[in-house]
Amino acid sequence: MIYEAIIHEQTRDYIYPINKNQLAIRIRTKRGDIKKCFLNYWNRQKSHISNRIQVEMVCYSRDKRFDYYEVIIDTVETSKYIKYFFEIKDENETIWLHYYGICHSIPDERVFEYLYTNDRDYLVIPNWVKNSVFYQIFPERFYDGDINNNPDNAVVWESEPNRVNFMGGDIKGIYDKVEYLKDLGINAIYLNPIFESPSNHKYDTVDYLQVDNHFGTKNDLKKLVDILHRNNIRIILDGVFNHCGYFMAQFQDVLQKGKESIYNEWFYIDSYPIDTEIVNYECVGYYKWMPKLRVSHPEVKAYILKIAKYWIEEIDIDGWRLDVADEVDNTLWYQFREVVKSVKPECFILAETWRENRSMLRGDQMDSVMNYLFYYAVIDFFAKNSIDSFEFDARINQFLGIYPKQSHYTLFNLIGSHDTIRFLTACGGNKSKLKLAVAFQICFIGIPSIYYGDEIGMQGENDPGCRGAMDWKRIEKEQDLLKWYKQLIHIRKSKKALVEGVFKTIYCNDKDSVYAFVRETSDECVYIVLNNGEIMENIILPTIETSKHIGYLEDLITGEKIMIGKPSEKPCYNDDIYSYTGSIALSIGSYEVKILSKQNEDQV
Amino acid sequence: MIYEAIIHEQTRDYIYPINKNQLAIRIRTKRGDIKKCFLNYWNRQKSHISNRIQVEMVCYSRDKRFDYYEVIIDTVETSKYIKYFFEIKDENETIWLHYYGICHSIPDERVFEYLYTNDRDYLVIPNWVKNSVFYQIFPERFYDGDINNNPDNAVVWESEPNRVNFMGGDIKGIYDKVEYLKDLGINAIYLNPIFESPSNHKYDTVDYLQVDNHFGTKNDLKKLVDILHRNNIRIILDGVFNHCGYFMAQFQDVLQKGKESIYNEWFYIDSYPIDTEIVNYECVGYYKWMPKLRVSHPEVKAYILKIAKYWIEEIDIDGWRLDVADEVDNTLWYQFREVVKSVKPECFILAETWRENRSMLRGDQMDSVMNYLFYYAVIDFFAKNSIDSFEFDARINQFLGIYPKQSHYTLFNLIGSHDTIRFLTACGGNKSKLKLAVAFQICFIGIPSIYYGDEIGMQGENDPGCRGAMDWKRIEKEQDLLKWYKQLIHIRKSKKALVEGVFKTIYCNDKDSVYAFVRETSDECVYIVLNNGEIMENIILPTIETSKHIGYLEDLITGEKIMIGKPSEKPCYNDDIYSYTGSIALSIGSYEVKILSKQNEDQV
Repeated sequence: MIYEAIIHEQTRDYIYPINKNQLAIRIRTKRGDIKKCFLNYWNRQKSHISNRIQVEMVCYSRDKRFDYYEVIIDTVETSKYIKYFFEIKDENETIWLHYYGICHSIPDERVFEYLYTNDRDYLVIPNWVKNSVFYQIFPERFYDGDINNNPDNAVVWESEPNRVNFMGGDIKGIYDKVEYLKDLGINAIYLNPIFESPSNHKYDTVDYLQVDNHFGTKNDLKKLVDILHRNNIRIILDGVFNHCGYFMAQFQDVLQKGKESIYNEWFYIDSYPIDTEIVNYECVGYYKWMPKLRVSHPEVKAYILKIAKYWIEEIDIDGWRLDVADEVDNTLWYQFREVVKSVKPECFILAETWRENRSMLRGDQMDSVMNYLFYYAVIDFFAKNSIDSFEFDARINQFLGIYPKQSHYTLFNLIGSHDTIRFLTACGGNKSKLKLAVAFQICFIGIPSIYYGDEIGMQGENDPGCRGAMDWKRIEKEQDLLKWYKQLIHIRKSKKALVEGVFKTIYCNDKDSVYAFVRETSDECVYIVLNNGEIMENIILPTIETSKHIGYLEDLITGEKIMIGKPSEKPCYNDDIYSYTGSIALSIGSYEVKILSKQNEDQV
Repeated sequence: MIYEAIIHEQTRDYIYPINKNQLAIRIRTKRGDIKKCFLNYWNRQKSHISNRIQVEMVCYSRDKRFDYYEVIIDTVETSKYIKYFFEIKDENETIWLHYYGICHSIPDERVFEYLYTNDRDYLVIPNWVKNSVFYQIFPERFYDGDINNNPDNAVVWESEPNRVNFMGGDIKGIYDKVEYLKDLGINAIYLNPIFESPSNHKYDTVDYLQVDNHFGTKNDLKKLVDILHRNNIRIILDGVFNHCGYFMAQFQDVLQKGKESIYNEWFYIDSYPIDTEIVNYECVGYYKWMPKLRVSHPEVKAYILKIAKYWIEEIDIDGWRLDVADEVDNTLWYQFREVVKSVKPECFILAETWRENRSMLRGDQMDSVMNYLFYYAVIDFFAKNSIDSFEFDARINQFLGIYPKQSHYTLFNLIGSHDTIRFLTACGGNKSKLKLAVAFQICFIGIPSIYYGDEIGMQGENDPGCRGAMDWKRIEKEQDLLKWYKQLIHIRKSKKALVEGVFKTIYCNDKDSVYAFVRETSDECVYIVLNNGEIMENIILPTIETSKHIGYLEDLITGEKIMIGKPSEKPCYNDDIYSYTGSIALSIGSYEVKILSKQNEDQV
């Protein structure tokens, strides 16, 4: 046993409440190194080590180096003040882990402790979020619903997008296309910024309390939210609070008055006079048009909190996506959450972050993060084929291993955005690869987000290429792709396991393109098998359903039926952590996906 | 090399700002497993991997299982947006660590990233704190300065303390003893609670805005703070905000009016009517007299923040010690810090926690923690002799390895408090052991805290025994012990290295009682050698001073001179991480301590 790989710490990474009465406890070990792991715990004040409870921990994730074990305990009685330690076995020995490390007998003191679960200590995510399929809209480029509010210099729709041109998309345009969105099957929209700003992307806000007049009016926005809500589609806005735009009145005041401005502490000014050529103030990505806001300043904080509240109360939005949230002072987000949830508890708070950011998911900041770790894994495996299914699986399990369990079902999984190359372009235009990736995205744990136009095969390099005008004419010729999206969304909505089921890998391998996983609830189990290679593969996969019934699985895409056989005699992937009850022999074609589900007996 | 022991994560545990322009980066490896470790970094936007900077990392701590490496980089230019990876060598191989784990060539993508240092992202501790020697006073038992405010039922001074009796100690009593405190050499006081409360300990507050009338008046407190300040002694109060007392008006209102009380959400009431026999409300340690406050409630939060501010503005206190801080909703502490520091930036915020609590030391909550990890190590080694010097060293290095570097100098190191057995009692009354532990405490990195009366040999079991009345008559007969305290405090104040020097272990061993360490600044180096055993030991210790000069060390306690010899030929402890320049051969008696310092050449 590699003792140095066995890690548990008394931090939220390893012990965190699920709610007031449940506590999740985690431990990490070297991959495949141990056989069994048990948590031993008791109430510090009301019980004693001799009356401890012992529960076995489950390996819920496995990446390249580590196995991640977890157990969730009910703590109505013991949640406050438990003492605990771990018992770990391999074939040769049993060891115990307590606060000071490994010991070779049951520890009698200096064990681990957990204290108290406070109201803000656990992550409470609005219930609707896990059921959502998001659609991201870059409003300047979705649909021009009102030509009267177009910028004077607007170019013709579907022109080559560049960093500065305008094409006239607006809020009325989204309103006009609600039927299209309904038909696609999405039920939530993430809208890129819409507040007053001189740019086409509007990440350089001039007035956070006004809708940009080229996009329409507050009333247009209100009408949009209403029609969406009537159609059970939720909408979140883009909150760009890390920085403002150069032309925001407060920054202009500082530009004009320098140190004498009452707003001089709203920004990070290195020296006076301000020089916008050498840029002696902090701005985002060294880009002078976006001065960084000093959100730790009480006035700035109050200003942002007012905005956060305003759009919920005024327009009834369903949440905020927070731009570059990981570059903003945390102390803003604690209060942001308090304010937003007090006005509308059902609001969803989503952070932009391109990295793993566990600290945002503790319960006191964000509900979810834009899961660019998912994006990187998917683009490397499906689009670039630069990693094999073993590495792909390792990367996915790495973030699942780290993020708290209750966040898994609402991770915002994307395969493209306004800040990336279009996925189809990354695939060299190969739609089979796009379709495969989308199938993975929609069946994986978390919520899928579709970037407008991907579903009709739009292409484009990273910004500005990915921000082209929605080519509505493509709907006709891209029926196959569009139907694929609709079918997958429909499958997701019809299978509870794809929304609420846990995720387990059942196949991946070195230098292999086939990948298979399971989504499982207590009464439903869906097997997803993908062939990311160019040749058909014959493969025998294990099934994990505990039901003794040997029956059929039905492919939810094709209706094809596959018989479940006896368990394979060959070792299965992860068979040291899961028990297998049967096997599925199947052939899977190049870039094919099978989504297999057991049918009720009377349907077979 | 054990790959699974090599850990760096993009979290504050492993990458944290020291200030706006310096960044500390850490990595952890198996103890003694690697030879060299390098950080490679470059600015994400302005530079490129090919222009990366490479710096060697230093092993700053070593516990039983792990080595902790760190490097601090200047980031005036690169602080924003660095990319980085690690290069790690042992005798056989070189490997690299990037985001996805170990690789066997220089990684070219998916490396680690650091974004931006915000205002609240780094720990800024008031400068005075590291120079302080604290003295903790339990006011009911220090000195009765005004017999007129004694409780009617007060028992005679020096009665056997129990959980309920009163002896008449008060604020005037502290005022009267300022000369004694000055003479002892302490320069900061941590005062147990003094607000209105029916108990002798006053952790069950009735009114947070009143001084308990048995302790005196606001004016008495003001006079005390003034005389302390005139004598350069600072004072922090005990803030008990996790819970209040049963008799606080707001709780009484809920007891009387039940659900109808406007304060019903200030507490955690399980059901109505409230039953104080079955105790159907949350309270601390199941103790009905201390109902838990719902600090996440906006009114409760505002109330506490008002109190925090009030005593600073009204009385000019120098900070708060926060009772059971680790059971309180974090979201209170973020705002608590903002309020306190905005009123008086020099205020010290100290958390009670009995465990490792790194999350409090990120910059947005506490300045320091009561270091009970230090306490446990010291009591096990010095008082109980239940661990050897190797285990003792491992435990100390474990918390140093985890806590951020800038917190080390202000960790609140205690060997006893109102919540522990008196240290001398834990030593079975052996004053030599107490003296040795105190010497360690005062020379170790961090700030020492003396529990009132320890310096005159007071004894007592844990609460109530440790809360006995200060026996002023003992001063006469305990001159030897009292002088020891004074001498050590004097030594600490006279040697900058004991305040600001880094800590390095130079000797510890299995089944050994001798322990030696160094405190070192760039121009001063102090060697502390302790023999925690019953027989004299002859030992050769390494010196680490980079000066070539072979000279003498002087024992700051006895004046004894010891010649520095050539480096030892035998391997020294930790000689794989430090270079040694010389050696010291010495004999050290049972329970003896030597504090050795190089003298200026003209003094030798």
